Amino acid sequence: MTNTQLSLVQIDNYGPWTVTPEPRREMDLQTLQSRLFADIAQFVGSRDGYAFFTRFDNMVAVTNGLDDADHELLQESIANRYPVTISLGIGVDASPIEALEAGTAGLQHAGSAQDGERREVLSGDALPESDRTDSDVQIAHFDVNDATGKYTDRLNEFDSFIQIEQGYATLMRYLREEYDSLSFFVGGDNIISVCPDTTEAEYRDAIRHVEAEAGVELKVGVGTGRNAHEAGFAAKHALEVCREDGTDVEFDHVHAEVADD
Amino acid sequence: MTNTQLSLVQIDNYGPWTVTPEPRREMDLQTLQSRLFADIAQFVGSRDGYAFFTRFDNMVAVTNGLDDADHELLQESIANRYPVTISLGIGVDASPIEALEAGTAGLQHAGSAQDGERREVLSGDALPESDRTDSDVQIAHFDVNDATGKYTDRLNEFDSFIQIEQGYATLMRYLREEYDSLSFFVGGDNIISVCPDTTEAEYRDAIRHVEAEAGVELKVGVGTGRNAHEAGFAAKHALEVCREDGTDVEFDHVHAEVADD
Amino acid sequence: MTNTQLSLVQIDNYGPWTVTPEPRREMDLQTLQSRLFADIAQFVGSRDGYAFFTRFDNMVAVTNGLDDADHELLQESIANRYPVTISLGIGVDASPIEALEAGTAGLQHAGSAQDGERREVLSGDALPESDRTDSDVQIAHFDVNDATGKYTDRLNEFDSFIQIEQGYATLMRYLREEYDSLSFFVGGDNIISVCPDTTEAEYRDAIRHVEAEAGVELKVGVGTGRNAHEAGFAAKHALEVCREDGTDVEFDHVHAEVADD
Amino acid sequence: MTNTQLSLVQIDNYGPWTVTPEPRREMDLQTLQSRLFADIAQFVGSRDGYAFFTRFDNMVAVTNGLDDADHELLQESIANRYPVTISLGIGVDASPIEALEAGTAGLQHAGSAQDGERREVLSGDALPESDRTDSDVQIAHFDVNDATGKYTDRLNEFDSFIQIEQGYATLMRYLREEYDSLSFFVGGDNIISVCPDTTEAEYRDAIRHVEAEAGVELKVGVGTGRNAHEAGFAAKHALEVCREDGTDVEFDHVHAEVADD
Repeated sequence: MTNTQLSLVQIDNYGPWTVTPEPRREMDLQTLQSRLFADIAQFVGSRDGYAFFTRFDNMVAVTNGLDDADHELLQESIANRYPVTISLGIGVDASPIEALEAGTAGLQHAGSAQDGERREVLSGDALPESDRTDSDVQIAHFDVNDATGKYTDRLNEFDSFIQIEQGYATLMRYLREEYDSLSFFVGGDNIISVCPDTTEAEYRDAIRHVEAEAGVELKVGVGTGRNAHEAGFAAKHALEVCREDGTDVEFDHVHAEVADD
Repeated sequence: MTNTQLSLVQIDNYGPWTVTPEPRREMDLQTLQSRLFADIAQFVGSRDGYAFFTRFDNMVAVTNGLDDADHELLQESIANRYPVTISLGIGVDASPIEALEAGTAGLQHAGSAQDGERREVLSGDALPESDRTDSDVQIAHFDVNDATGKYTDRLNEFDSFIQIEQGYATLMRYLREEYDSLSFFVGGDNIISVCPDTTEAEYRDAIRHVEAEAGVELKVGVGTGRNAHEAGFAAKHALEVCREDGTDVEFDHVHAEVADD
Repeated sequence: MTNTQLSLVQIDNYGPWTVTPEPRREMDLQTLQSRLFADIAQFVGSRDGYAFFTRFDNMVAVTNGLDDADHELLQESIANRYPVTISLGIGVDASPIEALEAGTAGLQHAGSAQDGERREVLSGDALPESDRTDSDVQIAHFDVNDATGKYTDRLNEFDSFIQIEQGYATLMRYLREEYDSLSFFVGGDNIISVCPDTTEAEYRDAIRHVEAEAGVELKVGVGTGRNAHEAGFAAKHALEVCREDGTDVEFDHVHAEVADD
Repeated sequence: MTNTQLSLVQIDNYGPWTVTPEPRREMDLQTLQSRLFADIAQFVGSRDGYAFFTRFDNMVAVTNGLDDADHELLQESIANRYPVTISLGIGVDASPIEALEAGTAGLQHAGSAQDGERREVLSGDALPESDRTDSDVQIAHFDVNDATGKYTDRLNEFDSFIQIEQGYATLMRYLREEYDSLSFFVGGDNIISVCPDTTEAEYRDAIRHVEAEAGVELKVGVGTGRNAHEAGFAAKHALEVCREDGTDVEFDHVHAEVADD
């Protein structure tokens, strides 16, 4: 059974900062946000977690394998190098949405995201090493069938983007409401979902729903592992099988190469 | 009348590269993509343009004020520092969607986005300096009314994100279909639209549509200028007026401070 | 005749910041410093200038072609994205050391580098566009003869580094004292010098001095141009001629390809 | 007794790459080098090691606490995000210079630094966890007495830099020849040395030598720990004691705050 550890990363009092003393140059904000995300992706990713940019001022990370000290170190390192600080809320649950609910609640109890006094909060506790198992994380990696041929090489870029975006908006809502999963657009035509134990029939249901509602055809590779990287790497290999075999849902377990590391 | 110069930035043959010889670590891809975007945002932004991450493998930039040599330099600099190269398609039109259509078509004629032989294409021509005017670019900067109070401080982060995302998905489609505008989510509860000459009534219509369809209440500041930064900076100041006065649509022209630079 | 525009970049009150409230993690400081330098190198370099990391808290840039507004924009953009701010002192002179003397004096008059109240000073004036010529900048690009064969592939890395470092320490002092040039180690076995009009005999004298005093054999390509990139690119091509022909001093003027841009 | 684990980081075939097919823009190379160093500093530093830029194409890292898998991950991550790859040579010894000698030899045996076929070599073995002790690493953190008052606020920046540089060149050679230590300039007026067990009298001897030979007055804080961060953090605190008490050599052990983490 899954046991997902999610960490909410929230920039402290960011909205007010962006307009104090007057609005800051937008491209500086974009640079700051995307580099902050990149640094978090490296920190979390090199410890076999996954981070998603979400709204950039709030990011969500799958942090199975990162302990409390890792979270503290991330906060300290960001504060040393950026003009902003971050608060972190950790939650653990079989259901990803419940884990995030817990992580978010920890920060909300400490104060508002726009409370100038609330800085560098660290709430919640990481999953103890002894409780971790090889099936704690399930990752589903979706992409759009022939997005290059159908969209990128035929439509103008914005109309291609609309198709991908409508597909994503439909999938993210459906998977959250029906199956307690969190889905993130990760660029190109790719969506990565953090899921509880979810069956092939359920993934197929979600794909059908997106095609019916948004007209976008998806396929998905699914992997399970001890952490996000293991699960996600298995999912990527499963997705490669979809591409080769023309199937729409494939499962894989920890991919051999990862397991050998 | 607006005369928007848009540049499509397309990573050459990116999809295949991400899985060759086998899938690459997702967090490395996320880091690569967001840093590449950050570099483009700095290059374009420090020349008073705007860049949007869009799908990351395809990005859209408002480049009024950047000439052909600037575009070449950007390509050269990226090729010197990244494991990937970029192609650029420039288009100019009173209508942003038409400008992007032209920019996209230039690259499409040169080959597929996944053609391994098509690298570092530069198509289209920048607007001659002599044709530029102080009203070439119109930028609308939207945000969500009291997003922190209604969402961030009350819902879990994913449910907050769903609200913002559904609002964005609705706005981006409506503004494109009805008013030829291109809308980009830029983090937090902010959406920036690149628009042709658009009236107050039309912006109000869009806001009403999003509230009716997605239940998300927006307000918007609108600015016009010689380039994206001037227009966008005026839009940000107009949005501050919305915040102070509780209004939903405000227009501003080039803000004094920018004009004085 | 050369007319070099030099800008001193000084992080405001950096020393005290690094130990407040207590010493910060050294690797965060190293990351901050090297990324700040990288951003300045991109900003200046994409405008055809050169930046050198020098002591990191003080950097030196050759900024012919960058005007006062460019300097202001650099300050604003750094302040928006880093936890520190920078002051800039501009100086222009036929002699690089005199130009830097003027640029430094401008900041020194405004206050101490460790004065907490002195922030974001911009002193001095950029060379007016109308005064610029195609021979304003002379760049000499030195490298060590067969550094890989003699050092890198034979000695341990620190002993290789000692050789390069002693060669650099000798050259930087000699060229400054005898010829008013500023020399910067730029990695590998490369040293770049910003020089006034300097003759082949004088470069040969410097090379002889370094060989006699430090036992390190150098060769040098020299270029002249309207800005640092043009001069430096010509110098790089001249250095390639040294490599091919086994010569020790070669001059080039603006390289054809650059001139055609 | 110290037992230092050093890793040589060597960019594969970098020199030829920088001039193929013709010389690349110098500021792009500077950006690439300094960002690559920053990424390595973050990777190593967030695992409590230290990395030094040295010659940028060859970097030296103190990696006690990083195992073989960490080194492999660093190589993979760099290859995924940069246009160059890195080879790593690990060495362990009571003497830092011997450790680096071993690490360098591992790469040299695999081929030349400019052998286009030799890529991503990983040689040597990390210190087994069971062999690690709390006194494996000794770090000495030097700075220049009143550098701001004597140099930065009085001389032009290049003449200040010459003073620091001559002090560094003298110290790095003396400590290597007399005491088997590796010294690295880390910006400002700071030098960090990786040392075997070295006595107060020996540090004082080195300080005297630098003052006699280069006229530069140094002081030093020395720390010992299980890894570079612990030792270096203790050294920083010891240096603060020098500043407060006006002493020239101070020792500290693992600083309380670090030990409590």
